[in-house]
Amino acid sequence: MAKAIKSIAVLTSGGDAPGMNAAIRAVVRTSIFYEKRVFGVRRGYDGLIEGDMEELNTKSVKNILNLGGTFLKSARSEEFRTDEGQQKAYEQLQKHEIDALVVIGGNGTFTGAHRFYEKFGVPVVGIPGTIDNDLFGTDYTLGFDTATNTVVDCIDKIRDTASSHNRLFFVEVMGRDAGFIAMNTAVATGALDVILPEENKTFDDLFGEIERGASRRKTSNIVVVAEGNKLGNSFEIAEKVKAHFPQLDTKVTILGHLQRGGAPSCFDRVTASKLGLAAVEGLLNGRADVMVGIVDSELTYTFLQQAVMNKAQLDPEMLRISKILAI
Amino acid sequence: MAKAIKSIAVLTSGGDAPGMNAAIRAVVRTSIFYEKRVFGVRRGYDGLIEGDMEELNTKSVKNILNLGGTFLKSARSEEFRTDEGQQKAYEQLQKHEIDALVVIGGNGTFTGAHRFYEKFGVPVVGIPGTIDNDLFGTDYTLGFDTATNTVVDCIDKIRDTASSHNRLFFVEVMGRDAGFIAMNTAVATGALDVILPEENKTFDDLFGEIERGASRRKTSNIVVVAEGNKLGNSFEIAEKVKAHFPQLDTKVTILGHLQRGGAPSCFDRVTASKLGLAAVEGLLNGRADVMVGIVDSELTYTFLQQAVMNKAQLDPEMLRISKILAI
Amino acid sequence: MAKAIKSIAVLTSGGDAPGMNAAIRAVVRTSIFYEKRVFGVRRGYDGLIEGDMEELNTKSVKNILNLGGTFLKSARSEEFRTDEGQQKAYEQLQKHEIDALVVIGGNGTFTGAHRFYEKFGVPVVGIPGTIDNDLFGTDYTLGFDTATNTVVDCIDKIRDTASSHNRLFFVEVMGRDAGFIAMNTAVATGALDVILPEENKTFDDLFGEIERGASRRKTSNIVVVAEGNKLGNSFEIAEKVKAHFPQLDTKVTILGHLQRGGAPSCFDRVTASKLGLAAVEGLLNGRADVMVGIVDSELTYTFLQQAVMNKAQLDPEMLRISKILAI
Amino acid sequence: MAKAIKSIAVLTSGGDAPGMNAAIRAVVRTSIFYEKRVFGVRRGYDGLIEGDMEELNTKSVKNILNLGGTFLKSARSEEFRTDEGQQKAYEQLQKHEIDALVVIGGNGTFTGAHRFYEKFGVPVVGIPGTIDNDLFGTDYTLGFDTATNTVVDCIDKIRDTASSHNRLFFVEVMGRDAGFIAMNTAVATGALDVILPEENKTFDDLFGEIERGASRRKTSNIVVVAEGNKLGNSFEIAEKVKAHFPQLDTKVTILGHLQRGGAPSCFDRVTASKLGLAAVEGLLNGRADVMVGIVDSELTYTFLQQAVMNKAQLDPEMLRISKILAI
Repeated sequence: MAKAIKSIAVLTSGGDAPGMNAAIRAVVRTSIFYEKRVFGVRRGYDGLIEGDMEELNTKSVKNILNLGGTFLKSARSEEFRTDEGQQKAYEQLQKHEIDALVVIGGNGTFTGAHRFYEKFGVPVVGIPGTIDNDLFGTDYTLGFDTATNTVVDCIDKIRDTASSHNRLFFVEVMGRDAGFIAMNTAVATGALDVILPEENKTFDDLFGEIERGASRRKTSNIVVVAEGNKLGNSFEIAEKVKAHFPQLDTKVTILGHLQRGGAPSCFDRVTASKLGLAAVEGLLNGRADVMVGIVDSELTYTFLQQAVMNKAQLDPEMLRISKILAI
Repeated sequence: MAKAIKSIAVLTSGGDAPGMNAAIRAVVRTSIFYEKRVFGVRRGYDGLIEGDMEELNTKSVKNILNLGGTFLKSARSEEFRTDEGQQKAYEQLQKHEIDALVVIGGNGTFTGAHRFYEKFGVPVVGIPGTIDNDLFGTDYTLGFDTATNTVVDCIDKIRDTASSHNRLFFVEVMGRDAGFIAMNTAVATGALDVILPEENKTFDDLFGEIERGASRRKTSNIVVVAEGNKLGNSFEIAEKVKAHFPQLDTKVTILGHLQRGGAPSCFDRVTASKLGLAAVEGLLNGRADVMVGIVDSELTYTFLQQAVMNKAQLDPEMLRISKILAI
Repeated sequence: MAKAIKSIAVLTSGGDAPGMNAAIRAVVRTSIFYEKRVFGVRRGYDGLIEGDMEELNTKSVKNILNLGGTFLKSARSEEFRTDEGQQKAYEQLQKHEIDALVVIGGNGTFTGAHRFYEKFGVPVVGIPGTIDNDLFGTDYTLGFDTATNTVVDCIDKIRDTASSHNRLFFVEVMGRDAGFIAMNTAVATGALDVILPEENKTFDDLFGEIERGASRRKTSNIVVVAEGNKLGNSFEIAEKVKAHFPQLDTKVTILGHLQRGGAPSCFDRVTASKLGLAAVEGLLNGRADVMVGIVDSELTYTFLQQAVMNKAQLDPEMLRISKILAI
Repeated sequence: MAKAIKSIAVLTSGGDAPGMNAAIRAVVRTSIFYEKRVFGVRRGYDGLIEGDMEELNTKSVKNILNLGGTFLKSARSEEFRTDEGQQKAYEQLQKHEIDALVVIGGNGTFTGAHRFYEKFGVPVVGIPGTIDNDLFGTDYTLGFDTATNTVVDCIDKIRDTASSHNRLFFVEVMGRDAGFIAMNTAVATGALDVILPEENKTFDDLFGEIERGASRRKTSNIVVVAEGNKLGNSFEIAEKVKAHFPQLDTKVTILGHLQRGGAPSCFDRVTASKLGLAAVEGLLNGRADVMVGIVDSELTYTFLQQAVMNKAQLDPEMLRISKILAI
């Protein structure tokens, strides 16, 4: 089947992440290197359904390596979850004589891709692109490295400030379902505490950490809050902490979407280049219905269904390190 | 009187701002250049009251030029507003044989300094240090340039992201009383709109801007919100906008104290160096009860009372530019 | 004459500078605001001669505010110095029915523009865009603020390193004719010494500074070298210093063109927005043969001939500050 | 033997690297967590020989996580290569009742440490800290990730500029013996070519790449040059290229020591935290004469002799990727 591939389409879907452009560039240039035609689809599966795509050449992806976001735009498509949507998408591929698909995104992206493969047999390879780093089958997802650098840079700036007694900063970071960003940036900034979606921390636990921290240090302290945690959003948490420690001056920063932007780090660009190339070579070698990833420094291909059914787990060692070093 | 100055104390007070360290360094080194003793007071007026100070030398201020925050720490002092507090502070100066004072901060800092001067006749010179740029008697306050670069960098990152249809980002920046940060960063990032403390913008005005913006562009839009505006905090604003435009996907970022940190810009360091030197030379030349500033590229000294009674005004031309360029 | 203007062309010429894109955007949007047509000319005067231009709209300048360089490209044109070149350029303007010209650049750019105005009477307004800040008639040239931040950021990184005894770093910065970048960044980083094109410093002067520095501090020292200085390039200087102080470990960094790039600072973007708007409004109000600038916070128009015949002078106060604070 | 450890000394040696401070912090806090005493030795082995050390506590390492360089200073020691030097160092350890040593550095550091262990049996564990990433026994060395981000940021800025025809930028990066920085940053910036110490590239090869590049693109091109390559330094290379392609405008940037500085990346801080903790736990568990590293996401201990006798190899896949994507 692989021999038949003459034309490949690439799209980005879901929340965007730094490094997606670098991955698109790698897909495009590798395709052209192997003398395949390559199409860029705009706005994820919605664009596929609507046929919003055009053929790309090496120049189309010039000077995008260093840009955050994705020049193909990204979207979450409701329509692609329906049979009608998938049918329309398939017809567009046929109309444009496209034989294979590279999709860059996360769990939702791969769920749709797997269903599409099952229905129509179109070879599809996924590239893990999400700042959350929560995908099974790869040690890194595109954007995570950049996002953690962005968060660390922000927390460093917050740490510079006042250092008057009794000040406590809550910094809310992304991570609805997974605390990787929160965990790593907490270790990297020496945070007093971190509140993760994966834990069942209570307010008493938090109060305890704050008391222990206050007894050791006199200056400003940081608590990193993953948005998907179970204690509430950071304003709510700050309010309860303030009610319990009235002498504390609590401050809240919500980083929001700035974590999704910025020029990708060297690591994210290199990884994107490797994965983009491997996605195309995988397709040309007959791979389909898989996500390409890097595990223990090796390129690996994981079946999409496996990738979406499992979840990357927080390394418990990181929690241990965090506690010992915040001593 | 000036001839009598043999020893100078320097402190930072109020909200801290990038460039304060550079100003302290300039005060210290200029004092030593003129063969005066110089003391660093920790934690603003509170430290002065408690005698929390020590003599500094050129090495004490080595390698601080590039650090955000203030190594002397800063605080807002309630006690210095009382007669008892001022009396204690005066006694500390006498005890340490300190003849003159340099205070780095904003309005509250200068109000206290003026009263202290009136009561005890201790020569005091103020250096404008606040990210808000809202002081009368100077074109620049230390930290404003750095803070606007920080905000612009954050908004650039937000702009990178998604660009799916109908997304509207609210970015809340500092500025309880003055909209300089909001105004300048809105122009610098091509924001759709800016909500300022100085204006009486209504929700209908805001809805109108959003509608006009939506009709012109299809991609992501930014609204910069100064925290002291009259429509509410950015979550409240985002909620009302969402209620009025249900199809809009609204997102909120609250930058908070990260605006006070970070390595100072070249401009803030150079300005801090100029002002720190001018503060000491002013004292040695008999100046007292004044704030040193830069107006139209010239060093100026403004009486503290004038500085605190007036307020820097937003340039209406900036609003005009903002509207024309957001066309 | 001003009433006749229906169509304006804009170009960037000479060495590029951060903020040029922001200025182009302001020219384009202000023109459209006043219902004029506006053309972008690629590659400076060469593109004008060749007719390499196209009409721009508000979308053409979307998302360029934050980009370094100039999307119109820049070049130094030999041909525009000839009568034939100027004639061809004029014919292109006529062919495209363009009535007026905005040129963004430095001395060379304005010299050509003035001659062109004299020959053909085409109203032209210049916008000062050069990282060197060496133009008469304006306190700021676009790109200077960004370039100095870039240099300061690099020197901060160099300062982080080793701090073994007796290490001396030479950092070569741009400035063939003017030492503004070197002077400001030396003050901003607490450099041991600065070598400027404007001074007649001898090697003995430099050796003296190094000796004085060595006697005061034990750690790493920085010397900022402007490329146009009279002692030689930084490798040559480092070699002579090493020959004189064999125990010194000398290291050289040459920043080169990285000083011309990077996202423009908030200040450069705001200034570019003001100047771009003022250039178009100036043209529409009958101004011609002038450079728009900012002097003492006011917009000013200086005749091009005056702008190019004079030169901005280094502030001697900066040298004094540099010496006192490096104590 | 491990049970006997009551007191640990830590030092940094050789060229400094971002992340060293984070590693020191982890060593100090882990030691204190296990109720051991911990000493910081200044200026590497020289400081050990001279007894330039002091006991550290958790506060000693506060607020250093985000600082480049090493607050313990680093040096290359000639004296530690002699028997006398090693003897003096041993006596200092005895005098201060120090039982074990953690050394952070590269090959030279570990060679000395191994000899010291062999002579005196003092348990020593090495932490790989060098921006060059060229150590055997670990996938990452502290500082490499930060240094590559710094280089990529600089090259991005260079890429912003001019883009006039026929301009070729040579960017010289560190790497006397190993081309990891050059290789990764070349892929990450889409460089036209990269000149590595590991290759035997000829000028004809380089001319060929430039010709192929020129035929494909019209704009600026970058060649990344590792300092230890065999064709010469970047000025010499630029000169020969200019002689061969006189129409080319060649420009040189030499990044030098700025690659060793800067706030460490999140990855370098997390890795430093892991390795610092593992070094101390290794010592307490009886490890000695080993370097702690991370291989395939697992902590590993490699004998120092093995670590220094072998060398990390460039991944040939990276060269392949570089060529395909520069198409």
